[in-house]
Amino acid sequence: MTRTGGIPDSQQASVLVETGVIALEERPVPVPEADEVLIEVAAVGVCGSDVHYYKEGRIGDFVVDRPLVLGHEVSGRIVATGADVARSRIGERVAVEPQRPCRVCAQCKAGRYNLCPKMEFYATPPIDGAFCHYVTIQSDFAHRVPDAVDDESAALLEPLSVGIWAARKAGLTPGSSVLIAGAGPIGVIAAQAARAFGATEVVVTDPVAERRNRALEFGATTVLDPTVDSVADLGVDAFVDATGVTAAVRSGIGAVRGAGTVVLVGMGADDIPLPVSTIQARELSVTGVFRYTDTWPTAAALVAAGDVSLLPLVTGRFDLSGVEDALRTDADPAGLKNVVHPTR
Amino acid sequence: MTRTGGIPDSQQASVLVETGVIALEERPVPVPEADEVLIEVAAVGVCGSDVHYYKEGRIGDFVVDRPLVLGHEVSGRIVATGADVARSRIGERVAVEPQRPCRVCAQCKAGRYNLCPKMEFYATPPIDGAFCHYVTIQSDFAHRVPDAVDDESAALLEPLSVGIWAARKAGLTPGSSVLIAGAGPIGVIAAQAARAFGATEVVVTDPVAERRNRALEFGATTVLDPTVDSVADLGVDAFVDATGVTAAVRSGIGAVRGAGTVVLVGMGADDIPLPVSTIQARELSVTGVFRYTDTWPTAAALVAAGDVSLLPLVTGRFDLSGVEDALRTDADPAGLKNVVHPTR
Amino acid sequence: MTRTGGIPDSQQASVLVETGVIALEERPVPVPEADEVLIEVAAVGVCGSDVHYYKEGRIGDFVVDRPLVLGHEVSGRIVATGADVARSRIGERVAVEPQRPCRVCAQCKAGRYNLCPKMEFYATPPIDGAFCHYVTIQSDFAHRVPDAVDDESAALLEPLSVGIWAARKAGLTPGSSVLIAGAGPIGVIAAQAARAFGATEVVVTDPVAERRNRALEFGATTVLDPTVDSVADLGVDAFVDATGVTAAVRSGIGAVRGAGTVVLVGMGADDIPLPVSTIQARELSVTGVFRYTDTWPTAAALVAAGDVSLLPLVTGRFDLSGVEDALRTDADPAGLKNVVHPTR
Amino acid sequence: MTRTGGIPDSQQASVLVETGVIALEERPVPVPEADEVLIEVAAVGVCGSDVHYYKEGRIGDFVVDRPLVLGHEVSGRIVATGADVARSRIGERVAVEPQRPCRVCAQCKAGRYNLCPKMEFYATPPIDGAFCHYVTIQSDFAHRVPDAVDDESAALLEPLSVGIWAARKAGLTPGSSVLIAGAGPIGVIAAQAARAFGATEVVVTDPVAERRNRALEFGATTVLDPTVDSVADLGVDAFVDATGVTAAVRSGIGAVRGAGTVVLVGMGADDIPLPVSTIQARELSVTGVFRYTDTWPTAAALVAAGDVSLLPLVTGRFDLSGVEDALRTDADPAGLKNVVHPTR
Repeated sequence: MTRTGGIPDSQQASVLVETGVIALEERPVPVPEADEVLIEVAAVGVCGSDVHYYKEGRIGDFVVDRPLVLGHEVSGRIVATGADVARSRIGERVAVEPQRPCRVCAQCKAGRYNLCPKMEFYATPPIDGAFCHYVTIQSDFAHRVPDAVDDESAALLEPLSVGIWAARKAGLTPGSSVLIAGAGPIGVIAAQAARAFGATEVVVTDPVAERRNRALEFGATTVLDPTVDSVADLGVDAFVDATGVTAAVRSGIGAVRGAGTVVLVGMGADDIPLPVSTIQARELSVTGVFRYTDTWPTAAALVAAGDVSLLPLVTGRFDLSGVEDALRTDADPAGLKNVVHPTR
Repeated sequence: MTRTGGIPDSQQASVLVETGVIALEERPVPVPEADEVLIEVAAVGVCGSDVHYYKEGRIGDFVVDRPLVLGHEVSGRIVATGADVARSRIGERVAVEPQRPCRVCAQCKAGRYNLCPKMEFYATPPIDGAFCHYVTIQSDFAHRVPDAVDDESAALLEPLSVGIWAARKAGLTPGSSVLIAGAGPIGVIAAQAARAFGATEVVVTDPVAERRNRALEFGATTVLDPTVDSVADLGVDAFVDATGVTAAVRSGIGAVRGAGTVVLVGMGADDIPLPVSTIQARELSVTGVFRYTDTWPTAAALVAAGDVSLLPLVTGRFDLSGVEDALRTDADPAGLKNVVHPTR
Repeated sequence: MTRTGGIPDSQQASVLVETGVIALEERPVPVPEADEVLIEVAAVGVCGSDVHYYKEGRIGDFVVDRPLVLGHEVSGRIVATGADVARSRIGERVAVEPQRPCRVCAQCKAGRYNLCPKMEFYATPPIDGAFCHYVTIQSDFAHRVPDAVDDESAALLEPLSVGIWAARKAGLTPGSSVLIAGAGPIGVIAAQAARAFGATEVVVTDPVAERRNRALEFGATTVLDPTVDSVADLGVDAFVDATGVTAAVRSGIGAVRGAGTVVLVGMGADDIPLPVSTIQARELSVTGVFRYTDTWPTAAALVAAGDVSLLPLVTGRFDLSGVEDALRTDADPAGLKNVVHPTR
Repeated sequence: MTRTGGIPDSQQASVLVETGVIALEERPVPVPEADEVLIEVAAVGVCGSDVHYYKEGRIGDFVVDRPLVLGHEVSGRIVATGADVARSRIGERVAVEPQRPCRVCAQCKAGRYNLCPKMEFYATPPIDGAFCHYVTIQSDFAHRVPDAVDDESAALLEPLSVGIWAARKAGLTPGSSVLIAGAGPIGVIAAQAARAFGATEVVVTDPVAERRNRALEFGATTVLDPTVDSVADLGVDAFVDATGVTAAVRSGIGAVRGAGTVVLVGMGADDIPLPVSTIQARELSVTGVFRYTDTWPTAAALVAAGDVSLLPLVTGRFDLSGVEDALRTDADPAGLKNVVHPTR
């Protein structure tokens, strides 16, 4: 391993000790494997999944049964390199793609490494995340970011990746029309991604007026209140659900034209009664997203080109001792994104 | 119009007068429009939708509210041509693609004419079908069949088209594995189509042993009894439902590997509770089929090449006066396909 | 036919009488067929093919052997409708998609109507174009334009369609890198289209400094002088040739990364020696464009959304008596697009 | 490493010492890395590239500048496993996919590992091949073969992979028509692959009558003599060149219908004058193949299902001391495939 001077042996980490309990702990600074880099963390966005683990202790089959470091939206600076990594990368500003696929299974070799059954993903039990000073990642998943992309935007390339992945799955192209349900962080990022993909009609629905107005600043060309407005006659090319709410999913599917696409991003009930006869008669394609593949270079390029703007999403900033506050305030309806700066 | 001698002005037609009542009626022989051909009908397969209209008087929003001629799986011989059609087509043996799209709307111009909102389709209210002596169709939807394809097989290019369309939607390619639920006519034709697309693992499920055995003669490489065998661990590339049964749809979806496809062919409940969390975590693509586009040339070529064999599907033959019997015996579990020969 | 009052029986047309000879002639105002509309022409862009017919009298197999009206980049206003067209369209501002496919052949029905072997295309012998007061087109090829799109931009939706079609063929998506050879009208429109498709690296080459500078105003992120700069190491996702020049085509192909695409737009020699071993070793996909399919709605939406700006392309304006000047000045290196206003 | 008893420390290898000189040498038996298996070689097919290296000492940029073991069409039996590989694989019959990509670069992670710039490929300088007793390969590139696939067929899954890859690139589907130039080993395997993909019209051209007749036994539905017959009016969906001959490539391109595909498999001149105006006017897609990705499971399944038959391709069998004869007789026009059995 090659490292700069001054890297300590231990570090502070904000740990989810048990459901609802966060504590600062002293942890060893990891030593990068041969193909890894060590990153001094600059900024970490708070995701809904972090909040969910904090409050519920589990997401589906993933159960927090021992202390876990949360946080998987990460940027930082390379401070050490494994034996097989070019030393010249030390000092580089990077955004972390927080996944570690096996690279050997059929899914990995087919280019769908997000579906790798052996995936290790940050802040998903039992893999630790990044609410700490130092993390390691394989070198090719530490994506260099251009100077035009600040640390917070670099961290938020992760949620932007979700938006990009959804836009790809939705098949958005210039001139597309898309309905997006939900104006939370993922909804507004999906709206921005849709515009970056050339969609010229971006309809966002949300029952909260304040959130609808905000969506108009983040790519939406039209906003609707689902408690009042029907989407049945929209005839959009694609529908992206960012709510997980059964009613939103069902009405959204009905808003899609023949041969259009439906992408389910929001997590809701395991089973949802879907209008199968509509899916058949219109030959709709319904799919979901599970993380992402090969999105960081795209995300960084879009932010650097000014096609997507992430910094305005940040509505709260915290240091490492404030992680619990960052996780609590996430439910604030006026807030979009909290960001933790562990080493500030 | 150019026609051979001896075409009468009127013909016999077997008409669904009201729900459950079939009667022979005298009807005028249609005169082909400029872009149409007049066909002397040779063979007409009985489809589940014919049976459904006969017994229930409706399928979803399509209601039989005046007398209707059923039958849309049709072969015959061109006996007259409209003004703009080459006279040389007279005498040609053809299979009828029983749809008449507008050719002008966005779906038609995008190559998805099956989704044309102005579609007129044989034996779908208020458009008459082919349980009669003569029918007309636009010239390009009367597909020449090679000598190697007999009249009955030519009629059954229609259900084969459903199988081909399902196989295309399923993305089947050489080496694919596919699960097909249901060993009725569509299930076994889908199994044959799957083999013709190169699938090497074709698993068919059906609760009836007799039907399972039959499936093994029509392309299935494995058969399972869904009341006994689990499909959960199959990890197939694609699932094709040919039942419309909720339990079959739900278990079938669970049998598909990450990034696989689900094609819903069978008509069942309008709403079906689908395992959305599985669709998301595996990024499955779920779609349905609605008729077909550009399948007749493929279907004819596959039958002529011996890659698909349709004649063994025919388990009952009837003349025009026997249409009601043909519709009734369709429910016979030992039967697969009834075919009517109106002009025999 | 339904028409507004005041439409004359005859009109003035600017006719290519023979190679190099343009004359104003009195021609009958066409009467729209049942599925057509009559359009009072507002603006007509001059295309390189118009100039070529004017100067050479032929393009490949298309020979001007009788008088021909040139001009196929057309906008205007509907002033009469055929029997089957809604009267309410009268008064609508439209852009003309100047093609008339058969809608019946295999290419048309597959959604590739641009490849229809029976295509009739404006200003392509023997079909007249639009340097005149009135033209007809089938109703669905007269695309309504929003108020935000002025008449000249509406006419230039045609060259933008070429750029969009090239971008689609090139597979451009957000974050793509693309090399475009040539900074003429098609090159700079292709550059704009590339940006609208989300390409973030748009490299344009041209030997003329003035044209390179102009490209930077129309979407290029980098410009290179091919007489000085090598593109060999670019490793772009796609290469679009807008020159037809052999050297440009060959060096451009070498600039593409493995599995990238090459789209040949410029017309040059019939045969070009291509680096086949490179195409093989990198598995490049090389294709060309021939007109376009389903691009007008996209083009209009992009202009209305401000994602593409066409008006700055117009560097010369002429009335009907100035067509010959418009055709001559097209070679002006400082000029990009001449537009004729026949009815001004 | 876990290994069965009886594996020696050294082995015999047939080595290309210099251009045109083959010698048996004693070489160490390799020790598998942690992710590798050691394979006792059963059968090795002779490829045209082996013959080329033997006779010319180079293929393009790949130069044999030190002794090289040839042979990359390999089957065998696992006799030892690296530390990270399941011991239970010992004894397994396998076909070797003879490539070792980096798994880390953008091409690998996109599922195009055949385009990996760091690829190490058997029998391509400086990587040794398999004309020897023992070889190693990463575990996931040693593909289990079912009992129904014999050792020689298992070795020939490699050239079948070329045929499958070409068929995929050509977009062959049921009912497709395809022109294949050349009835050598790759041509006839491509013909078989085409049939397995469902192509129903498979036209093969070759100037040698004996080879044309043979093609009819391997999937061709029609054969033509290019010195006599024109292919210009075929209008096929796809053209696959298996000759590398300029005239064949050029005439083949002209035989393809609008929007069809051209796949260049044969290696010929670096530059070939291609009919670019035809490629443009028909919007053809022209590409090449470079090895393959994810073809072994498909190849094995097709052979096991009886959809492709490889054993009849073998026209010469040799032991390790006969490698030079195997390389010389490859030019025999009556021969198709020579196979070496190193350990027999």
